[in-house]
Amino acid sequence: MIPITRIGTSRLSNTRSRSIVYNGVLTTVSVAADTAQPLYEQAQQALAVLDGNLAEAGTDKSRVLMVMIYLSDIDAKPEFNRAWDAWVDRDNLPLRACVGAPLEGDFLVEIVATAAVDT
Amino acid sequence: MIPITRIGTSRLSNTRSRSIVYNGVLTTVSVAADTAQPLYEQAQQALAVLDGNLAEAGTDKSRVLMVMIYLSDIDAKPEFNRAWDAWVDRDNLPLRACVGAPLEGDFLVEIVATAAVDT
Amino acid sequence: MIPITRIGTSRLSNTRSRSIVYNGVLTTVSVAADTAQPLYEQAQQALAVLDGNLAEAGTDKSRVLMVMIYLSDIDAKPEFNRAWDAWVDRDNLPLRACVGAPLEGDFLVEIVATAAVDT
Repeated sequence: MIPITRIGTSRLSNTRSRSIVYNGVLTTVSVAADTAQPLYEQAQQALAVLDGNLAEAGTDKSRVLMVMIYLSDIDAKPEFNRAWDAWVDRDNLPLRACVGAPLEGDFLVEIVATAAVDT
Repeated sequence: MIPITRIGTSRLSNTRSRSIVYNGVLTTVSVAADTAQPLYEQAQQALAVLDGNLAEAGTDKSRVLMVMIYLSDIDAKPEFNRAWDAWVDRDNLPLRACVGAPLEGDFLVEIVATAAVDT
Repeated sequence: MIPITRIGTSRLSNTRSRSIVYNGVLTTVSVAADTAQPLYEQAQQALAVLDGNLAEAGTDKSRVLMVMIYLSDIDAKPEFNRAWDAWVDRDNLPLRACVGAPLEGDFLVEIVATAAVDT
């Protein structure tokens, strides 16, 4: 039986995990801490939370596999891209998809990411 | 070559599988059986279908990894959460993300889940 | 450390990969090349791009695991299904989920797929 590592609980709810590691793959979700901010700042914050979640699992952005991005306003994608381009590891480009999706409350961006983890 | 196990066909169409097992991971999709019901009941049903799909693959909710939830009305998320909180295994919290998305017909919720499976 | 294989860069941006292979799984994203076309033609094109991405990674549609489909207009799903039914390998049905999502510019469909790859 391959073990499942559940890391922490979500900052939003105590009925879900913050990150999951299984079979060499971390999966984690991140959003901005301060939803009063516009998209660029929320994107920066969500990517910083992602960095923290990666570190917590013993990995980092050089080992990110896939990033799925949900934006409350798809027309604001260039603003997200601006934060992405400043954040991304140019030597280790993740796969990415980005679609529009209504999000809870004032969240403007939600990120689901996978990354390689040594086990 | 790592084998792929395809389980059944979707209840909605005969051109897609109901569940896939590969490399120790089950991936499965579930929706409510009765789309005349409101969200809370549809969520209960979709989670019951998920339980069935997990059992069919030889696993259960204690081994769920990630649950991606699509709601036709994101503002109704508290109703989904109520069903989730009653369903979830508190000792084995999955990772979760939940976004709004227009769904086909009268579906109010669609769930894509992964779970660990012994191989 | 399980190696990550990053294949090419996205046709849309040089800050993301076109495909990622890790732990026996390819993940890739595809859209239509010509966004002036209606959905059926965009679906055909996106599935052809998917075929190309699969081939580039040394796999093919008989080894596809999960296909996540985002449609800018969920009510047009039957048009997507028509292209899907013509494309899919009936002996090796993938798991599939399809939801509505606002997409960038004139894209009517975006596909995220995983497939088994021998490593």
